[in-house]
Amino acid sequence: MSGVKSGHIAVIGLGPGGAHQVTPEASTAVAGAKWFYGYGPYVDRLELRPDQVKVGSDNREEISRAKAALEKAALGERVAVVSGGDPGVFAMAAAVCEAIEAGPKEWRDIELSVVPGVTAMLAVAARTGAPLGHDFCAISLSDNLKPWETIEKRLDAAASAGFVIALYNPISKARPWQLGRAFDLLRSRLPAATPVIFGRAAGRPDERIEVTPLGQADAGQADMATCVIIGSAETRIIERGEKPALVYTPRFSNPGPEAST
Amino acid sequence: MSGVKSGHIAVIGLGPGGAHQVTPEASTAVAGAKWFYGYGPYVDRLELRPDQVKVGSDNREEISRAKAALEKAALGERVAVVSGGDPGVFAMAAAVCEAIEAGPKEWRDIELSVVPGVTAMLAVAARTGAPLGHDFCAISLSDNLKPWETIEKRLDAAASAGFVIALYNPISKARPWQLGRAFDLLRSRLPAATPVIFGRAAGRPDERIEVTPLGQADAGQADMATCVIIGSAETRIIERGEKPALVYTPRFSNPGPEAST
Repeated sequence: MSGVKSGHIAVIGLGPGGAHQVTPEASTAVAGAKWFYGYGPYVDRLELRPDQVKVGSDNREEISRAKAALEKAALGERVAVVSGGDPGVFAMAAAVCEAIEAGPKEWRDIELSVVPGVTAMLAVAARTGAPLGHDFCAISLSDNLKPWETIEKRLDAAASAGFVIALYNPISKARPWQLGRAFDLLRSRLPAATPVIFGRAAGRPDERIEVTPLGQADAGQADMATCVIIGSAETRIIERGEKPALVYTPRFSNPGPEAST
Repeated sequence: MSGVKSGHIAVIGLGPGGAHQVTPEASTAVAGAKWFYGYGPYVDRLELRPDQVKVGSDNREEISRAKAALEKAALGERVAVVSGGDPGVFAMAAAVCEAIEAGPKEWRDIELSVVPGVTAMLAVAARTGAPLGHDFCAISLSDNLKPWETIEKRLDAAASAGFVIALYNPISKARPWQLGRAFDLLRSRLPAATPVIFGRAAGRPDERIEVTPLGQADAGQADMATCVIIGSAETRIIERGEKPALVYTPRFSNPGPEAST
């Protein structure tokens, strides 16, 4: 088998964490690759065969990881780049595309497949009811790659237009104040009773789900592995006694003040 | 076994269509249920045992289907409500929550689990690169349950703030003009070259993916099973000769005109 131009790169979503949420397609893609690139904790989820090689790396080296994976695939190797959740949502698929566009022309000949997965907001939503049951958006709160002003503009636009908001990358040691600032901004647009869901490790044994009214939401309730979902003004809570309350956003939407005038 | 209060309802996401995209968790939930409620084509995907019973229904009867499923579960039965994609995204999880809130108090005692799945926009995005690689939103274009003005307001807000937009329920026989109207509105906000992806049956044998510049996008390219993804002004296309072009939205975002002044 000549390796020339037969390389393949699969960008694989491993879902929110548990093996029960990894699709058969993702498992097949993992089985078919030899070299594994990804943020250490994601690569460590894999149970690899002796002929398969982990190449872990730091979380903040996405573009260099993408380049290294493409270089390996260009040699004719079968390469996997793994992400938690879905690789197309604030994860490695975009980094691999960026590297292909900026890289040598041969990289465009590499076979590329992206294997979707259950992204964090879907897993967190499922554990609480149906908070994403109506129009919603997903925003990365990281201002490493975009100006904070852009993030504020999007939070404002989304809350004002009635979207439920899922925040990825809400907080980290290097970005300690952004989530608190986001809550402050949203408190000026949404009712204080709007449910905020802090979802961590949804569906895993160490799962932690908290629901807090926006008026009391505190950035300290999140860490870098938390997905934060902020309801719209229409999001509702159903109390169920000893069972955890359900949070859901109805499929219907009432006309806002503009529409009724 | 007394059936009283031992009923269970699982709202299960079957993913975009292929068995390779059904999570093991969803397969386990299907195996554990006896009664199956859902839109006919979704229920028909299941290979059930002789002791399992399909109760299919029309696509527009979501709330009555949710009630019927809850009534059955309240008898102590093990019930599954199935959705394509993810049940929390414009699907049955919200309808079940609505029915619980409006229904008899006993329904709040029914064990409820929501099993997430790969929703259509993730599957379509994966087949084209990484169009959802940056901030994005999901909007149902159906004005059966919300006023059209609300939809226009959200399209406007999303496009103006730089979100990629995924449209669910873009068109149907009863809603023939809405998608064309949405394209017209977006053409006044976004460059004519903005990529629009029409994704149908992503990952299935009958998959059909088309990428068209917004300037030429035509509602006739979609049907009711299509997910339409409209890029932001930053979404890019990578030509790859004979291979399908890649569509992706970079992880970084440049400051808009407001931010640079």
